[in-house]
Amino acid sequence: MLTKTLIDKIKNRESDIVLYGITPPKKGTSEDKIVEISARQVERLQNQQVDGLVLYDIQDEKSRTDEERPFPFMETLDCYDYSQNHLTDLKIPKIIYRAVGKYSKPELTNFLTEADPKDNLTIFVGAASKSQEVTLSIADAYQLKADTSSDVLLGGVVIPERHQSKGDEHLRVFKKIAQGCSFFVSQGVYDVNASKNFLSDYYYYGKEHDIPLVPILFTLTPCGSAKTLQFMKWLGISIPKWLENDLIHSNDILQRSVDVSEQSYRELKEFADEKGIPVGCNIESVAIRKVEVDASIDLLERVSR
Amino acid sequence: MLTKTLIDKIKNRESDIVLYGITPPKKGTSEDKIVEISARQVERLQNQQVDGLVLYDIQDEKSRTDEERPFPFMETLDCYDYSQNHLTDLKIPKIIYRAVGKYSKPELTNFLTEADPKDNLTIFVGAASKSQEVTLSIADAYQLKADTSSDVLLGGVVIPERHQSKGDEHLRVFKKIAQGCSFFVSQGVYDVNASKNFLSDYYYYGKEHDIPLVPILFTLTPCGSAKTLQFMKWLGISIPKWLENDLIHSNDILQRSVDVSEQSYRELKEFADEKGIPVGCNIESVAIRKVEVDASIDLLERVSR
Repeated sequence: MLTKTLIDKIKNRESDIVLYGITPPKKGTSEDKIVEISARQVERLQNQQVDGLVLYDIQDEKSRTDEERPFPFMETLDCYDYSQNHLTDLKIPKIIYRAVGKYSKPELTNFLTEADPKDNLTIFVGAASKSQEVTLSIADAYQLKADTSSDVLLGGVVIPERHQSKGDEHLRVFKKIAQGCSFFVSQGVYDVNASKNFLSDYYYYGKEHDIPLVPILFTLTPCGSAKTLQFMKWLGISIPKWLENDLIHSNDILQRSVDVSEQSYRELKEFADEKGIPVGCNIESVAIRKVEVDASIDLLERVSR
Repeated sequence: MLTKTLIDKIKNRESDIVLYGITPPKKGTSEDKIVEISARQVERLQNQQVDGLVLYDIQDEKSRTDEERPFPFMETLDCYDYSQNHLTDLKIPKIIYRAVGKYSKPELTNFLTEADPKDNLTIFVGAASKSQEVTLSIADAYQLKADTSSDVLLGGVVIPERHQSKGDEHLRVFKKIAQGCSFFVSQGVYDVNASKNFLSDYYYYGKEHDIPLVPILFTLTPCGSAKTLQFMKWLGISIPKWLENDLIHSNDILQRSVDVSEQSYRELKEFADEKGIPVGCNIESVAIRKVEVDASIDLLERVSR
């Protein structure tokens, strides 16, 4: 384990936080298989320099777009249950995502009061679109968090792509900070310019209004195939044309995407360091193929060096 | 003088061509003053590593947008006349811009037959917008060039920003190559991503259709003030938000813009070199203040090192 915990680093608004993100096994996986999968995940990560493990709460995003989803949607095990039952041997804090629209008030309250704030952090995710039917809105969830006085550290989602179209992502972030968020995780970053544009407005607005900046953690996602590339675009991840061309024409799209992700992070890090903006990263491993998982570990080792 | 001429380099489709671009003195300048200005220009450039001198043919672009022009439009001396009368001591080829909409057929024919192809190249520029009243269209001008059998080497304009919105700038470029263009000069580059996107499509299309790539020369423009920045945006130059923020908040916008321009060029060069796309640059000095002219020379020295 690292000497300084993730929670300390976030509270101190430090740079260089490194997370690793996974999805739990899909629903219906046999108990034996779950044990096997989780054992591999623990083993893979326990000697890595990683501050925390992100566990995604997958929701069907089909209401977001009319385009066909390149991969079918598959429900997964509840990520908090999975973490509690199978990942306790991994002695790093878990960042439990909560797609709040899936839960009732009592369910979310239960989670917030049960989860140990030393070992768990949480990130609330709102509906994928305005048309999605939800029980709790993200505003309700923030209110609930405040009402329960839970000490579980709260993070938010930041979407640099939205900054490109609307130009107000930094204002959303500051609003969420006021609502209790103390760190942010982006969606997959392939468009460094969009992220720099967001960081820049975040920096200058914070400076002008004398608001301390909290850590922004950029998600890096190795891409193993042209189909995965299509899926990332479907998810709303912006990919510059030159990069899409290079990936599609590459002999080894996976290795190329790892190189590009490392380079993107270094570029963002350099940009942020010059201004003193705390940034870190979240290496996402959502694919199942062994080569893709290995690539994510390779990327993790490269960025945490 | 360099051992290899600009014309050789273009015909060999070489990388690393460096141009310097100026506008002639404005109309009504006294002869004494013109002599003084031109002598300074010649002196400033004669010991520089520069392959050619671009002379712009300024046209009023007010039909392009409803927004108010930040600087008034000022007519300049004819750039070919100015070059012939005052810049012959500078022993490098001149690239004479021709905003073709300003000329009649006989006028353009005269220029093409009179200009010595050893010392002069030309670039035709079309109307600033479809609503501008013109005598010759760019298609007419290309036809005229073919009809006169002039040996004056022809270049074209490339606008990476247009690639962002329309995605077909590489096709326009290949069409112009078919119409006789053997090199291209961009408008001012502040959005590296837009230029990389264009270069990428240019590269892959050329490769797929087995068409040799001709040199693309990126224009770098030092920016001396917030007002100049507004003017560049008015001209249609895309500037990423982070860069605009940094320039506006900089203590020394001019120096910062020189640093950024050098860095942008290195990034484009690295990207192009990896793929073997011939690229070069054109350092633009269109401002009048001495500090801005000096900055352009500083940039010229940095990129030609």
